[in-house]
Amino acid sequence: MDAHTPSNQIKLPDGLLQRMSRMSTGSLSIQLFKRGIRNCFLAGLKPLNPAAARFAGTAFTMRLIPAREDIDNYDNLVPYPSDRNLQWKAVDAIGKDEVLVVDSRNDCNAASGGGILLTHMMTKGVAGIVTDGALRDGVEIAAMPFPAYARGINATTRLAGHHVADLQSPIACAGVPVYPGDVLVGDGDGVVVIPRYLAQEVADAAEQQDAMEQWLQQRIADGAPLYGTYPPNEQTRAQYEAWRQSQNQDTSSS
Amino acid sequence: MDAHTPSNQIKLPDGLLQRMSRMSTGSLSIQLFKRGIRNCFLAGLKPLNPAAARFAGTAFTMRLIPAREDIDNYDNLVPYPSDRNLQWKAVDAIGKDEVLVVDSRNDCNAASGGGILLTHMMTKGVAGIVTDGALRDGVEIAAMPFPAYARGINATTRLAGHHVADLQSPIACAGVPVYPGDVLVGDGDGVVVIPRYLAQEVADAAEQQDAMEQWLQQRIADGAPLYGTYPPNEQTRAQYEAWRQSQNQDTSSS
Amino acid sequence: MDAHTPSNQIKLPDGLLQRMSRMSTGSLSIQLFKRGIRNCFLAGLKPLNPAAARFAGTAFTMRLIPAREDIDNYDNLVPYPSDRNLQWKAVDAIGKDEVLVVDSRNDCNAASGGGILLTHMMTKGVAGIVTDGALRDGVEIAAMPFPAYARGINATTRLAGHHVADLQSPIACAGVPVYPGDVLVGDGDGVVVIPRYLAQEVADAAEQQDAMEQWLQQRIADGAPLYGTYPPNEQTRAQYEAWRQSQNQDTSSS
Amino acid sequence: MDAHTPSNQIKLPDGLLQRMSRMSTGSLSIQLFKRGIRNCFLAGLKPLNPAAARFAGTAFTMRLIPAREDIDNYDNLVPYPSDRNLQWKAVDAIGKDEVLVVDSRNDCNAASGGGILLTHMMTKGVAGIVTDGALRDGVEIAAMPFPAYARGINATTRLAGHHVADLQSPIACAGVPVYPGDVLVGDGDGVVVIPRYLAQEVADAAEQQDAMEQWLQQRIADGAPLYGTYPPNEQTRAQYEAWRQSQNQDTSSS
Amino acid sequence: MDAHTPSNQIKLPDGLLQRMSRMSTGSLSIQLFKRGIRNCFLAGLKPLNPAAARFAGTAFTMRLIPAREDIDNYDNLVPYPSDRNLQWKAVDAIGKDEVLVVDSRNDCNAASGGGILLTHMMTKGVAGIVTDGALRDGVEIAAMPFPAYARGINATTRLAGHHVADLQSPIACAGVPVYPGDVLVGDGDGVVVIPRYLAQEVADAAEQQDAMEQWLQQRIADGAPLYGTYPPNEQTRAQYEAWRQSQNQDTSSS
Amino acid sequence: MDAHTPSNQIKLPDGLLQRMSRMSTGSLSIQLFKRGIRNCFLAGLKPLNPAAARFAGTAFTMRLIPAREDIDNYDNLVPYPSDRNLQWKAVDAIGKDEVLVVDSRNDCNAASGGGILLTHMMTKGVAGIVTDGALRDGVEIAAMPFPAYARGINATTRLAGHHVADLQSPIACAGVPVYPGDVLVGDGDGVVVIPRYLAQEVADAAEQQDAMEQWLQQRIADGAPLYGTYPPNEQTRAQYEAWRQSQNQDTSSS
Repeated sequence: MDAHTPSNQIKLPDGLLQRMSRMSTGSLSIQLFKRGIRNCFLAGLKPLNPAAARFAGTAFTMRLIPAREDIDNYDNLVPYPSDRNLQWKAVDAIGKDEVLVVDSRNDCNAASGGGILLTHMMTKGVAGIVTDGALRDGVEIAAMPFPAYARGINATTRLAGHHVADLQSPIACAGVPVYPGDVLVGDGDGVVVIPRYLAQEVADAAEQQDAMEQWLQQRIADGAPLYGTYPPNEQTRAQYEAWRQSQNQDTSSS
Repeated sequence: MDAHTPSNQIKLPDGLLQRMSRMSTGSLSIQLFKRGIRNCFLAGLKPLNPAAARFAGTAFTMRLIPAREDIDNYDNLVPYPSDRNLQWKAVDAIGKDEVLVVDSRNDCNAASGGGILLTHMMTKGVAGIVTDGALRDGVEIAAMPFPAYARGINATTRLAGHHVADLQSPIACAGVPVYPGDVLVGDGDGVVVIPRYLAQEVADAAEQQDAMEQWLQQRIADGAPLYGTYPPNEQTRAQYEAWRQSQNQDTSSS
Repeated sequence: MDAHTPSNQIKLPDGLLQRMSRMSTGSLSIQLFKRGIRNCFLAGLKPLNPAAARFAGTAFTMRLIPAREDIDNYDNLVPYPSDRNLQWKAVDAIGKDEVLVVDSRNDCNAASGGGILLTHMMTKGVAGIVTDGALRDGVEIAAMPFPAYARGINATTRLAGHHVADLQSPIACAGVPVYPGDVLVGDGDGVVVIPRYLAQEVADAAEQQDAMEQWLQQRIADGAPLYGTYPPNEQTRAQYEAWRQSQNQDTSSS
Repeated sequence: MDAHTPSNQIKLPDGLLQRMSRMSTGSLSIQLFKRGIRNCFLAGLKPLNPAAARFAGTAFTMRLIPAREDIDNYDNLVPYPSDRNLQWKAVDAIGKDEVLVVDSRNDCNAASGGGILLTHMMTKGVAGIVTDGALRDGVEIAAMPFPAYARGINATTRLAGHHVADLQSPIACAGVPVYPGDVLVGDGDGVVVIPRYLAQEVADAAEQQDAMEQWLQQRIADGAPLYGTYPPNEQTRAQYEAWRQSQNQDTSSS
Repeated sequence: MDAHTPSNQIKLPDGLLQRMSRMSTGSLSIQLFKRGIRNCFLAGLKPLNPAAARFAGTAFTMRLIPAREDIDNYDNLVPYPSDRNLQWKAVDAIGKDEVLVVDSRNDCNAASGGGILLTHMMTKGVAGIVTDGALRDGVEIAAMPFPAYARGINATTRLAGHHVADLQSPIACAGVPVYPGDVLVGDGDGVVVIPRYLAQEVADAAEQQDAMEQWLQQRIADGAPLYGTYPPNEQTRAQYEAWRQSQNQDTSSS
Repeated sequence: MDAHTPSNQIKLPDGLLQRMSRMSTGSLSIQLFKRGIRNCFLAGLKPLNPAAARFAGTAFTMRLIPAREDIDNYDNLVPYPSDRNLQWKAVDAIGKDEVLVVDSRNDCNAASGGGILLTHMMTKGVAGIVTDGALRDGVEIAAMPFPAYARGINATTRLAGHHVADLQSPIACAGVPVYPGDVLVGDGDGVVVIPRYLAQEVADAAEQQDAMEQWLQQRIADGAPLYGTYPPNEQTRAQYEAWRQSQNQDTSSS
């Protein structure tokens, strides 16, 4: 499996997304950087509800182009499936553990979505929503236990600014390429995009990094000198390894 | 009454502003969109005190141009009314249920106003302040029970960046045209501008929309299918109508 | 002492920084404006932990240029002092009551620093960190009792976007010139930069202004008329002076 | 035929594109505005060769997303058709009287294309290229008799910044929606996008407007008063009509 | 006369504008800087016809706010004076040696004006037009012997983006304050704004500076050392003075 | 020699700069991309005189920070060397075949330099000037046979916006890192920065690429099919090689 393997040929191990939802975007970004991927963090997006910011999910993409006055108006919002109504199709089709990733061209002059559609997704176990534009109903969404990241808030209806061009094509989100099936992880600081074929490898490495960095941070907080501790030299690494094994024993013996 | 009717010839019904202060900017924006007004939401502004974000008021406008070094300095800040001191005139002249709307050219490099002037307006029953630039004394204002929306915070005195050019002329605020007397409503998500001649009509429609959408959102939260529920088809509308009438009976019978 | 006096020839009085950490950036900005310095506030930066926003410190500067792929990679992050590793040098060399001021070219596409380095600085009594770019580990830093101001949050490692070009040279930070040794004060609204030779003079004046403005704000809150009260005319100034002396007596007699 | 008619069901009359290549974007924009389309001009793009700026063609769209380091490199530039090589597919597939319209996300940090690909398109009778990003080989293209509009020039290879995501889907170009088959017209001032189903109607009206405005401009240049002449009142319109008919007679009698 | 003197109380000497139209914006900017005015150059504007870029005129201001769909449409473009039609009023009222200065909020998404209105102004001896937004009919205007400065070109009718809010009020243009009656000078590099009360004083000084700098530039071009020549020391100044007097004698004796 | 070799230890072969001044920034950028350097082109800068755009030179860097009112004024422009006058030092110290590269923080609100200083450098054989900000005296410079690249034109004196912080330190220019001694090449499209240790290797490869691409472009212009020709397959490469050797024979035999 490499960068060109279609995402539906790459099976993610059971439990991987759940594990990744506890990792930090910092460690994941560094693991991607070490593998040559520099541009993976969606800069400028914030969780509307910081208490519901953590998630991991696979990308279900939706692409917006600018609205055109003769196409984008309320006549299209028919209450049944239609090709004129792709936003509904997306919200209907997206499933558990997927995250709706919206290419809004970084344009916050109209909303990419709002409270009712998010509520429906939440009831289905969708992992979250990420847009590089704005959401409506910001106050309401801020009170929902649902990960929702956006660049801003705008009450203006999507129709005034955006047209849904297609679903499940590769998109740009906040300057980062996102392919359908990629893994996205949010941790409150923001969202990182991980190419699907790298997800497991990166997750394994980031998990170890997160563990060691927590230990290092405690050492630094306890007054350890900077040099030698962070980044860790051989001695520090050995101390960490010893501590980690003692922890494992504690755990296994308990 | 139409778009060209002078605002002083348009009387707003008693209680309208109070009603509108409870509406959502989302529904108001949609009602304006349906009437051909696409650009009505002040994108990028935030309430400094989210707990005091709701307001409705009529626009008292103040327009800022860039400061000029030989005009804008502390010699002008005389403690009495003067044409050189239009910011004081504004804060002195503005009245109850009006909102000070400031055209700061979206420029956050100096403040448009600060805590003491806001305190004076608050004591008079002014509805709020809205600027597309910055305010000073942000921490202090965030603790005041007074609706104040701005794009940013900047401690720099207005004199370093802005000159008050005139009061009560039509202005741009955050890219939206604002005419004196227009109705502005803030709800925490941001601020919407409603042409005065449309205020009552739009308010009536938005009020109904808000009520139905709350009901729809609950249905969606309870697991109702997306299609048919939102946007509502005939059957859903009939169910809502029945529910609403039962509610009214409950209320009238109680 | 004037603008050209080297900062190491200007001794700050004992206790000055402590006093300045209680002043408002608003009053400090106005005192600088009155002395001809218009551009002194770092627009657009926010404290990650609003409860730990107040600080005063002298500038220890660090300058970042864009990363180059063949220079900025993990091979450089050796766990000992090196010229290839200036960020470590900075964090190691900075001392008590200094603030690390980072010229990140207002670029938030990679982090300027993260939690472990900040933790080390906090343990040493460093006054804070100020960057016009982004920090990593935002959620974590928001929980630390350490003043940290940034324009944004980005989990991307510094190496992906920034190279540390030098330390302790004059820099730009958020469009404001900062010379090593300048005094920076943060109060939650943001950060103001005070040329070192003006620090004492400006502090003395701002302290008096802060005191009077608090009294004026109370008067305005109590319903005093705007004209005559703010800005204060002769009579108001006399009343304030009388009040202030009565306070001092109260204090001295108690 | 309306806004939803698929473009392949709309036949353009013979000679329409040739006629439209002589019209002004100003008149075409006004005719679209009169039909409710406000957002149709590609702001900020310039012809590289002002002497070869006029064109009319139907949109062949190409959409770029940000490059990813493991996908976008020279291994993909194989000298035969491949799904990894969509830019070649586009340049190979595009035909006479079509214009390549590129959604580059307004990003000028890498090129969307360069001289050799443009040369190939020119030899085939392609109408032109329009990108909201940059082109390479700007000096060379400026000397080619081929309409090429871009926001800037950048010598950086596309692979460093862009990935071709797909062809012939609806796109955004310079903030304007472009659907495959839409008619684009360039006249040196820039490029206007005309929904295909409106092309003939708008062209007919713009042609008449262009003719009258040329006559009006001459009248104004000859010192005619502004009011009554432009916009024309009934009398001026009658004079124009008389002049136009006399011209037609001159032409027919000659 | 000072900064607060109304412009209609300040008479400009005969011939001053003609003299100023030959001066450089560089020298005029420096003379303003020496008098404390730092912000006087309209950054980012270019002459459409570089061969017709020189002008000096007094400001006739026009201020644009964003268009509103129910106000700004073709029904307002009646062929007679009307309050709904202030652009016509401006073009009709502006006179010889005045320059139309347009506050377009730096917004190039619609035109501030076009060829026919400029043609009318040109026939009347108007000095030029300056907008911080866009003009239509760019190719045509580039061929007119009329100074026209803009930030960009956009064929979109003004009605799609702008509403004329008022005439002859103080405005912002490209970030610089412009008061009616101020003197504007363009020289191909751009446009400088000179407060009316300073016009004569600044012109006299700039004229001398221009003359000396031409002489200095020739000396530098001839290989004179930098130090001592530019900026000139006492000796160089004396040499210039001698040369200048010899020139005057040549002129007077001829 | 690698990325960390100090530039004064890397000798450039005689004639290399002269050869490089004839290469295209396109081929140089591609050769850098192939070696892992993606960010090397100074996006957004233009030659003021397109007829004098070609140059190659080694970087002499100058770094600007924002001006401070008490430091940056005409008192500093003394006509002799001084630490307060680093711009003069730069223009005095820079030598033949060096190019003055100015970090102006992409800020065009004041000039980075003007005609007289450029004239002095031209007389000394300096290769050119490159700034990511503005130059003054644009019309004049456009007529000089001297390569000068800038983002814009601004008549405002440098003192109003910039302070020269230091010379010959690593800088950012238009978002690209530039180290003293790096090789810069301009070709009319813009400027590319080549790490000094890579200069010779990259030049050799780009020279061959330029030659082949000229031949390929001619083939494409003559109607050769796209696939197989560009990028060239084995057969095309062989044909080119044959042609190239026949050319060399022609040359050697003539």
